[in-house]
Amino acid sequence: MNNFTFLISTKIIFGKDTEELVGSEVKKYSSRALLCTGGGSIKKSGLYDKVIRSLEENGIEYIELSGIQANPRLGLVYEGIKLCRENKLDFILGVGGGSVIDTAKAIAVGVPYEGDVWDFYSMKAKPEKALPVGDILTIPATGTEASISSVITNEDGMYKRGLNTELIRPVFSILNPELTFTLPDYQTACGACDMMAHTMERYFTNVENVDLTDRLCEAILKTIINNTPLALKDRSDYAARAEIMWAGTNAHNGLVDPGRIGDWASHGIEHELSALYDIAHGAGLSIVFPAWMKYVYKHNINRFVQFAVRVWDVDLSFESSEAIALEGINRMMEFFKKIGLPVTLSDANIPEDKIEEMADKCTNKDTKTVGNFVKLNKQDIINIYNLAK
Amino acid sequence: MNNFTFLISTKIIFGKDTEELVGSEVKKYSSRALLCTGGGSIKKSGLYDKVIRSLEENGIEYIELSGIQANPRLGLVYEGIKLCRENKLDFILGVGGGSVIDTAKAIAVGVPYEGDVWDFYSMKAKPEKALPVGDILTIPATGTEASISSVITNEDGMYKRGLNTELIRPVFSILNPELTFTLPDYQTACGACDMMAHTMERYFTNVENVDLTDRLCEAILKTIINNTPLALKDRSDYAARAEIMWAGTNAHNGLVDPGRIGDWASHGIEHELSALYDIAHGAGLSIVFPAWMKYVYKHNINRFVQFAVRVWDVDLSFESSEAIALEGINRMMEFFKKIGLPVTLSDANIPEDKIEEMADKCTNKDTKTVGNFVKLNKQDIINIYNLAK
Repeated sequence: MNNFTFLISTKIIFGKDTEELVGSEVKKYSSRALLCTGGGSIKKSGLYDKVIRSLEENGIEYIELSGIQANPRLGLVYEGIKLCRENKLDFILGVGGGSVIDTAKAIAVGVPYEGDVWDFYSMKAKPEKALPVGDILTIPATGTEASISSVITNEDGMYKRGLNTELIRPVFSILNPELTFTLPDYQTACGACDMMAHTMERYFTNVENVDLTDRLCEAILKTIINNTPLALKDRSDYAARAEIMWAGTNAHNGLVDPGRIGDWASHGIEHELSALYDIAHGAGLSIVFPAWMKYVYKHNINRFVQFAVRVWDVDLSFESSEAIALEGINRMMEFFKKIGLPVTLSDANIPEDKIEEMADKCTNKDTKTVGNFVKLNKQDIINIYNLAK
Repeated sequence: MNNFTFLISTKIIFGKDTEELVGSEVKKYSSRALLCTGGGSIKKSGLYDKVIRSLEENGIEYIELSGIQANPRLGLVYEGIKLCRENKLDFILGVGGGSVIDTAKAIAVGVPYEGDVWDFYSMKAKPEKALPVGDILTIPATGTEASISSVITNEDGMYKRGLNTELIRPVFSILNPELTFTLPDYQTACGACDMMAHTMERYFTNVENVDLTDRLCEAILKTIINNTPLALKDRSDYAARAEIMWAGTNAHNGLVDPGRIGDWASHGIEHELSALYDIAHGAGLSIVFPAWMKYVYKHNINRFVQFAVRVWDVDLSFESSEAIALEGINRMMEFFKKIGLPVTLSDANIPEDKIEEMADKCTNKDTKTVGNFVKLNKQDIINIYNLAK
């Protein structure tokens, strides 16, 4: 186990009707907020009206930035920064899914910065301050509600890049599982895969002696595996929705980081897919992760055996580690298929003609490697895309 | 799952040599600290000198309150409060085990209060403010390093009582597993039992649909069960010590609370034992918990089956739930014995003549019940003490 510092500073307010507390939470920080929203679903569900009422009851003035879509674009981030500066808004409230909250975070870190906020995403500069961000989460998936991450796509070249800094960890997040009852099944499944991916990026590490965090990872994975089919069977299953939602937060809030070094290659490889083909991140991950696993499992077969046995209940003869490891990967693919996700590029109607271009972007023209469990170069990434065909 | 609020506000600094950071952490809050310490072990180990050096290098003036013992007494808390007031100290630093840190917390909440600090422990008053507390933990056990709890014994009547308030959650805690290499085996074992007890107090709940937190509890328990024998076999096994230490924090920092209502009867029943006979809290718990389980398991046999199967790998015929449940309890007792803990009152040379007196104290003369999983009255508690004979 490596040395580590641990502090999850986001206050989580979880459960039924908790969205009504949003105004009183914002008020602790500011009386002038930018309200970031997505499409019309929060208006249809009535959530929007509740938020506005709560803000008004607490004397919060707000200006809205709406229309934030999946794989959120830099253009709207610029627009949000401008709105904040022009109107002296000093709190960013995101109400929606990961894209809305990631946009809120990008705006929060962009407002006090004199340069181009994309500098932070392209690693040209490091942020030093940010406005506080709060949110109401409607799509459990990215874990952004309590994470230090934000992922934005630059339309100029379709680069999808992430920023990680404690500065953008939300000061509060409101999570009401009831708000997820109306999610389409496909989005529920994509969310489940995204959470699993966050957990697995940590799970596959070269750091030894990480027993507790291994087991915490397994707890999160099993919870998602058991509860996602229940939520798909009955969209209004509060218990299942609550388990999924809370698992999603814990998959990415830092709980399963202590003392380990994560991999994150699959996220990088997937980002090229969803930047180019605009598929859901979770659906990209259900394609990339199995291929990545098949490509790297021999690097530490015992870790894949543990994954197969503890997470997927594989109970084959331990004389064949390889068979156990592969059966674990196989069961994961079967699970993804069962919940309606693609597991190959062709499942998602993604052509093969841009594999080299994506591998180039992912490795900055083969000038850097991707991942930590196994460091992958451009050819490795081409091989992984090919395994995913 | 019930609604909940979640925020673990303690910054954990974990790993080798981290004690050297203590001065710079204190400095973020104050330049005048009360330094609380226990017996001479931190002087012998060299930790004391390192702490003093780090405080001095960071310009922290300090006054020491030493001699804090197991089952810490109210008398020293009064003395600490007096020292702080007389010397205008506004940060409390605990360096030691749970007793030292619990004393530090009691002083922190006592200094700004005009009345008697015992009012908070006897439920006569609720604290409204406290000085910040930080610590270096040397005995992984109570989880106080990131918890909202402090337990103090009032010598006047030997009442051992707890206070729970967010105000006393440490602002930072420094955890270096190397500092635990010199712990006597018995203290290592008592600590392991205390952590397991914290987890089990949460595990046995009447709240339904708590899948993720169940699994997180099981992860913590299995980590302690697997690593404690390794630490006892080789006291300097860093990996095992680190797992135990981090498990102990997670057992009591609030990670396994969300959405559940814990029981806490066994802690109440044990407190009467250790207040009266001055045995280690962990050793009292290894006596009380099995008896409590035998007394209540029929209340929700399926939960005890889950505990037996998932935590203790019991693999009997599922046609007999009762056999599985009892085998789980049996394996827990065997584990406690294996690591050198008592599992009966006679193992700890505790006489039977004060059972009624203890049951009286525990239930305030049968005017209140104890526990939530099953609400226990005075007679129930007598029965449990008798089961522990």
